[in-house]
Amino acid sequence: MSAADRQPDPLEGVATLDLQRTRRRGYPEAVYCEGKTLEHVEAIARSFVGTTPDAPVLFTRVDADKAAAVLRALPDARHDPVARLVIWPPAEPADLRGSVLVVTAGTSDIPVAREAALTATYLGCEVDEVTDVGVAGLHRILGRLEQLRTADVVIVVAGMDGALPSVVAGLVECPVVAVPTSVGYGAAFGGLAPLLTMLNSCSPGIGVVNIDNGYGAAHLAAQIARGRAR
Amino acid sequence: MSAADRQPDPLEGVATLDLQRTRRRGYPEAVYCEGKTLEHVEAIARSFVGTTPDAPVLFTRVDADKAAAVLRALPDARHDPVARLVIWPPAEPADLRGSVLVVTAGTSDIPVAREAALTATYLGCEVDEVTDVGVAGLHRILGRLEQLRTADVVIVVAGMDGALPSVVAGLVECPVVAVPTSVGYGAAFGGLAPLLTMLNSCSPGIGVVNIDNGYGAAHLAAQIARGRAR
Amino acid sequence: MSAADRQPDPLEGVATLDLQRTRRRGYPEAVYCEGKTLEHVEAIARSFVGTTPDAPVLFTRVDADKAAAVLRALPDARHDPVARLVIWPPAEPADLRGSVLVVTAGTSDIPVAREAALTATYLGCEVDEVTDVGVAGLHRILGRLEQLRTADVVIVVAGMDGALPSVVAGLVECPVVAVPTSVGYGAAFGGLAPLLTMLNSCSPGIGVVNIDNGYGAAHLAAQIARGRAR
Amino acid sequence: MSAADRQPDPLEGVATLDLQRTRRRGYPEAVYCEGKTLEHVEAIARSFVGTTPDAPVLFTRVDADKAAAVLRALPDARHDPVARLVIWPPAEPADLRGSVLVVTAGTSDIPVAREAALTATYLGCEVDEVTDVGVAGLHRILGRLEQLRTADVVIVVAGMDGALPSVVAGLVECPVVAVPTSVGYGAAFGGLAPLLTMLNSCSPGIGVVNIDNGYGAAHLAAQIARGRAR
Amino acid sequence: MSAADRQPDPLEGVATLDLQRTRRRGYPEAVYCEGKTLEHVEAIARSFVGTTPDAPVLFTRVDADKAAAVLRALPDARHDPVARLVIWPPAEPADLRGSVLVVTAGTSDIPVAREAALTATYLGCEVDEVTDVGVAGLHRILGRLEQLRTADVVIVVAGMDGALPSVVAGLVECPVVAVPTSVGYGAAFGGLAPLLTMLNSCSPGIGVVNIDNGYGAAHLAAQIARGRAR
Amino acid sequence: MSAADRQPDPLEGVATLDLQRTRRRGYPEAVYCEGKTLEHVEAIARSFVGTTPDAPVLFTRVDADKAAAVLRALPDARHDPVARLVIWPPAEPADLRGSVLVVTAGTSDIPVAREAALTATYLGCEVDEVTDVGVAGLHRILGRLEQLRTADVVIVVAGMDGALPSVVAGLVECPVVAVPTSVGYGAAFGGLAPLLTMLNSCSPGIGVVNIDNGYGAAHLAAQIARGRAR
Amino acid sequence: MSAADRQPDPLEGVATLDLQRTRRRGYPEAVYCEGKTLEHVEAIARSFVGTTPDAPVLFTRVDADKAAAVLRALPDARHDPVARLVIWPPAEPADLRGSVLVVTAGTSDIPVAREAALTATYLGCEVDEVTDVGVAGLHRILGRLEQLRTADVVIVVAGMDGALPSVVAGLVECPVVAVPTSVGYGAAFGGLAPLLTMLNSCSPGIGVVNIDNGYGAAHLAAQIARGRAR
Amino acid sequence: MSAADRQPDPLEGVATLDLQRTRRRGYPEAVYCEGKTLEHVEAIARSFVGTTPDAPVLFTRVDADKAAAVLRALPDARHDPVARLVIWPPAEPADLRGSVLVVTAGTSDIPVAREAALTATYLGCEVDEVTDVGVAGLHRILGRLEQLRTADVVIVVAGMDGALPSVVAGLVECPVVAVPTSVGYGAAFGGLAPLLTMLNSCSPGIGVVNIDNGYGAAHLAAQIARGRAR
Repeated sequence: MSAADRQPDPLEGVATLDLQRTRRRGYPEAVYCEGKTLEHVEAIARSFVGTTPDAPVLFTRVDADKAAAVLRALPDARHDPVARLVIWPPAEPADLRGSVLVVTAGTSDIPVAREAALTATYLGCEVDEVTDVGVAGLHRILGRLEQLRTADVVIVVAGMDGALPSVVAGLVECPVVAVPTSVGYGAAFGGLAPLLTMLNSCSPGIGVVNIDNGYGAAHLAAQIARGRAR
Repeated sequence: MSAADRQPDPLEGVATLDLQRTRRRGYPEAVYCEGKTLEHVEAIARSFVGTTPDAPVLFTRVDADKAAAVLRALPDARHDPVARLVIWPPAEPADLRGSVLVVTAGTSDIPVAREAALTATYLGCEVDEVTDVGVAGLHRILGRLEQLRTADVVIVVAGMDGALPSVVAGLVECPVVAVPTSVGYGAAFGGLAPLLTMLNSCSPGIGVVNIDNGYGAAHLAAQIARGRAR
Repeated sequence: MSAADRQPDPLEGVATLDLQRTRRRGYPEAVYCEGKTLEHVEAIARSFVGTTPDAPVLFTRVDADKAAAVLRALPDARHDPVARLVIWPPAEPADLRGSVLVVTAGTSDIPVAREAALTATYLGCEVDEVTDVGVAGLHRILGRLEQLRTADVVIVVAGMDGALPSVVAGLVECPVVAVPTSVGYGAAFGGLAPLLTMLNSCSPGIGVVNIDNGYGAAHLAAQIARGRAR
Repeated sequence: MSAADRQPDPLEGVATLDLQRTRRRGYPEAVYCEGKTLEHVEAIARSFVGTTPDAPVLFTRVDADKAAAVLRALPDARHDPVARLVIWPPAEPADLRGSVLVVTAGTSDIPVAREAALTATYLGCEVDEVTDVGVAGLHRILGRLEQLRTADVVIVVAGMDGALPSVVAGLVECPVVAVPTSVGYGAAFGGLAPLLTMLNSCSPGIGVVNIDNGYGAAHLAAQIARGRAR
Repeated sequence: MSAADRQPDPLEGVATLDLQRTRRRGYPEAVYCEGKTLEHVEAIARSFVGTTPDAPVLFTRVDADKAAAVLRALPDARHDPVARLVIWPPAEPADLRGSVLVVTAGTSDIPVAREAALTATYLGCEVDEVTDVGVAGLHRILGRLEQLRTADVVIVVAGMDGALPSVVAGLVECPVVAVPTSVGYGAAFGGLAPLLTMLNSCSPGIGVVNIDNGYGAAHLAAQIARGRAR
Repeated sequence: MSAADRQPDPLEGVATLDLQRTRRRGYPEAVYCEGKTLEHVEAIARSFVGTTPDAPVLFTRVDADKAAAVLRALPDARHDPVARLVIWPPAEPADLRGSVLVVTAGTSDIPVAREAALTATYLGCEVDEVTDVGVAGLHRILGRLEQLRTADVVIVVAGMDGALPSVVAGLVECPVVAVPTSVGYGAAFGGLAPLLTMLNSCSPGIGVVNIDNGYGAAHLAAQIARGRAR
Repeated sequence: MSAADRQPDPLEGVATLDLQRTRRRGYPEAVYCEGKTLEHVEAIARSFVGTTPDAPVLFTRVDADKAAAVLRALPDARHDPVARLVIWPPAEPADLRGSVLVVTAGTSDIPVAREAALTATYLGCEVDEVTDVGVAGLHRILGRLEQLRTADVVIVVAGMDGALPSVVAGLVECPVVAVPTSVGYGAAFGGLAPLLTMLNSCSPGIGVVNIDNGYGAAHLAAQIARGRAR
Repeated sequence: MSAADRQPDPLEGVATLDLQRTRRRGYPEAVYCEGKTLEHVEAIARSFVGTTPDAPVLFTRVDADKAAAVLRALPDARHDPVARLVIWPPAEPADLRGSVLVVTAGTSDIPVAREAALTATYLGCEVDEVTDVGVAGLHRILGRLEQLRTADVVIVVAGMDGALPSVVAGLVECPVVAVPTSVGYGAAFGGLAPLLTMLNSCSPGIGVVNIDNGYGAAHLAAQIARGRAR
C-alpha cells in the first residue's frame, strides 16, 4: 500500500470517495443511493463537478427525488428510471471489450436486468438482452442457443423458482452470473427462494450475487468478459 | 421439441408469451402482473387484440391501476377486484369437465379463494364454494361432509394454523390441494406457519402450493379434476 | 359421522389404528416408524396377525432393527432396505388403475424415489421410473418426452436446486407431484432450498409434498392417477 | 423479598438449588440434566440425601448414564426410561387435586406425553391418557368427547402438523396446554412446524410450551388444575 | 356431535358464525377483522342486529374504518381505539369470577395489554393492570409483589427481550400467560425474539400465545381464572 | 435492594420511569419512543417539567410528530432529526471522561452513527467521527490508524457485509463496540447479515449490540470509556 | 438440441452420465458421491473402465469407504483424503491455461481450499495457494499483494465472519470467487453467516458459490481463468 | 502499516501465526482447534517449542485427541477438559489488572463459563465466579448484589431464555458481556433464542458475543477491565 493510496477526503463527514479505485481497478465509481439523504446524494454529485473522471460515475438505486438531486448538480447526466440509475458523464464507452448477454426469466425481472445491462455497457462491454425465457416454456431458451453460446459471459436474472441459471449453465461453456430477484409469491420470501436455488445449482459454472443486485452482477460480468476479450 | 415449438417473439424486449402452451397443455395463458410496469401490462394486453385464443387469458394479481391498463386494451374483459383477476374474453366455458370444491377456513381467506374459484371456472370446471369452516368449530366442516365427498378435487384455503386441509383430507377420498394464506397474527410470519402445517400434514393426499397462490391451486385442481372426469 | 366410525381401540395406550380408513378412503394403512420404539413397532405389526386387510399395510421409515421387529410378527412381509419400507401382505395388487412415472434428478435421490415407486405400486398404479435426468444436462429429460407425456401423473424427486419439476411441468399436460429431498451441500439446508424452489415454480400444475416424503407423494399421485383412469 | 429468601448455596460452584421454591410456589424442584456432566448430576442428587423434601424432586432429560448417576446417590428413586425421568422419593402423592388429560396425536409422541403424565402425577393431579388420536382420522378424537369434557385441563402433545390442539380446544371448555414435538419429516424442522401451528391456532384457549417440553406442560397444567379443583 | 350442533349458516358465502360456541364453551364470539373487507365486517355486524347474545361479541383488530363499519350496524357498541376492539353490547358483565392481572414490560406494549384487559373484563374477570415494569429496573416489579401474588392468573405482555414472564413466573404461584409483542429494534424480528425467550423460559408455569395476541391471552387467562374461582 | 429503591410511580398507567437509575448507574434516563402514542410521549416529557435531573434525558427514535410532542412539553430541548433524538436539558456535559471514536462503513450508516455520537457526548465522553471507510477500499481505514489507536473505545457502524469491525478490532488495542445497520440489498435481510458477521468476527475484542441501535452502542461505549479514563 | 445430444443411458436405473458434457463444455465429468450408496458409486466408477475420457473424472465428497469403492474399479486413481476427492486418470494436465490463486482465511478452511486447488489443477489451471491470512491480522494479506495481483482469478475460502473476500476484492482487478465454509462458532449457523457476508460484500467483483463448495468454486474459476488466458 | 508488520510465515501452507499481535495488542495468541486436523494442531503447537512468548498461548475448543496432540509437542502445557482449553506455558500471570466476575444462569452453562474464567485469568485479570443464579429464582442473583457491584466487568453466561444479562445489567454500573449458550429445549434452536434475547435487552450496557464463545467474552472483558484498572 503505497503512500499514493492514502489521500485526504474531499467530503469530510459525508463520504470518503474511492476515486483511486477507477485507476487501481480500472472500473467506474458507484454511489449506492439507498439510505442516503437527498442532501448527501447531492453533495456527492456536486463533488464531481469540474472533474474529468477516467470512467463514468454510476448513481445506483435512485428514486425520482434522488435522481433530481443528482441532476441538479450534474444536469447532463443520463437518468434511466426503470434501472434506477443516473450515469455521468452520459457518453457510452467507445472501446468495447468482451460481450455480455443479459437473460431474464420473466417480464417482472426487467428492472434488475436493465440495471445490469446499462452497468455493463458503461463498464465497456458489448451488451445484448433476451427477455422472458423462463423454464416453464423451455423452447423459449432453447430457441436462443446460438446467441447464448457466443457471449463471453451470461447474466441470468430470475425470481420465483430461480431455475433458469441451472438450465443456462448446462447449455453454455462460458461463466454464468446469476442474480436472484425479489419477484414472486409469498414463499419466495423476498428473493430467498431463487437465491438458494442458484447457490444449490446442479450445474457448475455459476457465480451468485445479492438479491436484485443488477449492478454487482454486471460489474463481475464485465471483469470476466474483459479478461476473456484481452 | 419440434420446430413448431420455436417461434418468433411478438413482444420483443418485454415478454415472450407462450401461446403454444394453450394448445400444448390445453390450458389458458396467465399473465402475472405483480412487479410489471403499467406500460408492460398494457402492451401485453394489447398484443391479444384481434386474436381468437383457444382459451381465456388470465391477468393475475392486478390492482386497480393495472386492471385499468388491461381494460384500455381489452374493454370487454371481466374484472373481479376481490380476486384481483382480469379475464378475457369474459365468456365462461360452456363445456365443464370435473368438479372442484373450494373450502376456506375463515372470511379473511376469501380473496385467495375467489381467485381459485374463478380460475377453476375458466379452466372448465364446475366450481362450488364453502366458506368459514375452520377447525375451531368442527361441526361446520362436518356439516358439509356430503358436499365434500362428491367433489373431484377439494381446494382448501387457510391461514393462521392451516389445520383445515389435514382434517378435510382425512374425510374425503379425492385429492386435496392446500393453499396457505398470509392471514394471521405475528407468528404466522406471512403464511409460513400454515405452509409448514400443510407440508407436514398427518393426512396423506395433499398437494401444497405457494402462499396466497389461488391461481396455482386452481390450475392444479383443474388438471386433476379434468382427468377424473374423462 | 355415523356410529360405525367410532370404534374401540385395539392397541390401548400405544396406537389407535385407523383401519376404517382403508374402507373409507380405499387406501392402505401406513405406519410411520420413525420415533417409535421397537416394542411399539412390533406390537402394531403383531396386531395385524390373523387379519385379512382390504389393502396392504406399509411400514415406512424403517431401519434394519425396525424391519426385523416387523418381520418377527409378520415373517412373510416384504422388506426393501433402500426405500426403508416393509409391506404386508407382500403380494402386489393385480388390478392396476392409472400410471405413475417417477423421475429423479440425481442418483442420490434414489431412496426417496424408490419409496414413492413402491408405495404407488401397492396403491394399485402402474409405475415406471426415470433416473438421473437433472436440468444440468437438459437432453436427458428431453430424451424422455414421450414417456413423460403418456403418464397419468409424474412424480419428480429432486434435491439441490430442485429445478426439475418446473421444467417437467412445462413439458407435460398431466399434474406433477414434486418431492424435495435433503440431498445437497450446505445452503440446501436439509431440503429447504428445493422445497422453496418447487413452491415458487413458474410452471403451474405442481403439488408439493414434504421433504423426502416419497410415501406422501405416491399416495397423492395414486389418488390422482386412479381418478384419471376411471 | 424477605431475608429468609436469601440463603447460602449448598453446592458451591455447581448449582444454586432453589429449595425454597417448593415452599414458595408449592411445587417440586426439577433438575434439568441435559448438558450437565455426570459428576454434576450425581453431586446434585447426593445433596438431597438425608433431606425430607416437601415434594418430590424430578431429574428431567436423563439418559441411561445420568439415571445411574442419580441412582448411585438415591438408590430408591424411580426411573422411567421412556419419559427420561428419575423421581425421588418415589411415592406418588396421595392427596390429588384436579384432573389432567394427556392426549397424543401419534405413537411417536409417547415419550413426551409420558414425561408430562408422570410429572403431573407427582405434582398431585389425577392423570389420564388418550393416545394416537391425530386429526387424520377425526372419529378417534370425537369418540373421546366425554372424556375430554370432564378434565380440568387437557394437555395435547403433537408433532408434524400440530393440528390436534386447535381441534381439541374447539371441543372443550377447559384450558388446553399444547406441546409441539420434534416428531416429523424434513419440513417439520425439529418441531418448528407444530410450534407455529399451535401459536397460530384459530381456537382460543391454548397456552403453548417449548418443543418436547412435557415437563413444562405438566407443571403449567397442574397449576391450572389445582386452581380449578380448589 | 349431536344434530343440534349442525345448523344452517346465516351469512352464506361470507362467514359461518359459531354462535353455539358461546353456549358450548361459555365464552363470547370474536370476529377477527384483519384481512376482512369493510363489506364483510359490516355484514357480520349487521347479522347480530335484533339478537340477544348470551355474551358480548368482540370485533378484534379493527382500525378506524372497520370500527365505523361495525358502528353503522351496531351504533351502541363500545369502541376502544387503543385496544383496536369494538364490543357489543357494551355493558360490562356484572357477575365477575376470578381475577386477572395484566402486567406490561414497557409503555409501547400498552395497546396489546389494553386488548387483553378489555377482553378479560368482558369475559367476566376482575382485571387489574401494572404498567412499565420491565426487568431493566427490577425494583419496579418487586414493588408489586403482593399485587402479583393475589391474582388468579397473571398475563405478562413484553416485547424486546421478553424477559419479564420468566421473572414473574419465578415470583408467583399462579399460572402465567405470556404475550410477546412486536415492539423492538431490528433483531427483535417483529416479535420473534421475545416469543423465543418466553418459550424457553427457565421458570415453569408459563403458557405462551401468539405475538401481539392480547385477545388470545385474555381468553386463556379467563378460562383459567374462572376455574380457580369456582 | 433497599427500601429507597421502591418508590411510587409518577405516571400511573403510562410509564414507570426509573429515575433512580441515573443515580444508581450514573447514566441518563432514555425514553424509547417507537411504538408509543403521541399522548404517551408528551405525558412522559411533561413529567420532567420543573425537575432538575442529574443527567440529560434522551428521547430516542423520535419522528417529526413525536419530536413536536416532546418540544411542546420541553421547548428548550435539542432535536436532531438525523439521529432521531430529542435531548433535554440541551446543554452538553462539561466534564468529559474517556474518548469514543465512531467509525462508519458507508454514508448510508450515518443516521445510526449520529445517534451513537450524540448519545456518547451526552453521556460525558469526548467523541470523534470517521465516515465512509468501509473495507472495499482498505487505504481509507488504514489512513486513520493513529486516530483509531488513541481512542478509549471504537464504535463501528456498518451495514451490508458488516466486515469493518473485524478489520478495526485487528488494528487496535481497545475494545470495539459493533453496530449492524439495516442498510443493504435483499440478502442483508434487514441487518441480519452484518449482525451475524459481527458475532462471528475472527478478531476478538468485539461486543455486538442490536441492529441500528446507536443509542445502546454509545451507552456501552461510554461505560467502558469512563472506566478507562478513571 | 441435435439428435446427437440424446443418447441411451449406460447405467439404467442408477445414473445418466453426461459424458457429452466434457466435449460440449470442455470440462471434466464430476460424480457427487454424498448420499450415493457404495454400490452406486462403484457401479459408476466401473462404467469408466476401458474408456479414454477427454478429461479427468472427479469423484467429489468421498469418505474412506467410497474412495475404496472407486479404487476397486479404478485402481490407479488418485485419492486425496483432505480434499475428499478421487481423480481418474491421475495424470495432471500438461497444457495449463490461466492462473488461479486459492486464499484461505484460516487453517480450518484448508479441506475446502484443497478441493478447490486440486479441481482447478485438473481443469487445466496453474494453481497457487495462500493460507491463514484472515482479516484479524491485515498485514498477512497485505504482505501478499503482488501475488494477489498477478492471478487471473482469486478464490477466497472463509468461514466465521467471511470478511476476507470483501477485502481481497478491494485490492485486485481480477474477479473473485468466494466460498463460505461451515467453520465457526454457534451463530455461524453452518456457514450461513459467511455466506450472507459474501453476498452482501461492499466490494463489487465477487461471485459466490455454495457453502463448502470447493469444487464449484474451482470450476467457475477455471472457466474464467481460461477465458482470460486465451 | 510499517514494514516490521509484514513477516514471513513460519508454517507455510498450514497457518500464518500472528505472533506480532501479542506485542501489538498486548494479548495472548489463540489457536482455534475445531475443524483443524490433528496434524495441523500438533504442527502449530510444535512451532512454539523453544520460543519464549510474551504471553501464554491458548488452544481453544480442544477435545481429548487434540489436547493429546498439543501435549505431545508441549508436555508441560495445562489442559482443562471442562473448558476444552490447553494453555502454554502453564504459569498464571502474576501481575493482575482489573477484576472480572463470571456469572452463569445454570449448571449446564458451566463449560462455557469455565472457558471464560480461565481465559480471563491468563489475560491477567482477577476472576471470580457465581454459578446457577438464573432469573427463575431472583433471590439467588439478588443475594450477590455486593459481589456484582465490585467487579470491573461482569460476564453473564446463559442459555434457554437468556434473561439473566438484562437483569444483571439493570443492577450494576459496569459493562456486561453476555454469552448465549446452546443449552436448552427445542425452540432454543442451538442458542439462537438466548442470543436474540441478549441483543434485544431492555437494559443498556450489554455487549454480546457469539453462542458458546467463552473465549471471546473473556477477551473483550479483559480489554475492558484492564482499561478500568489503569
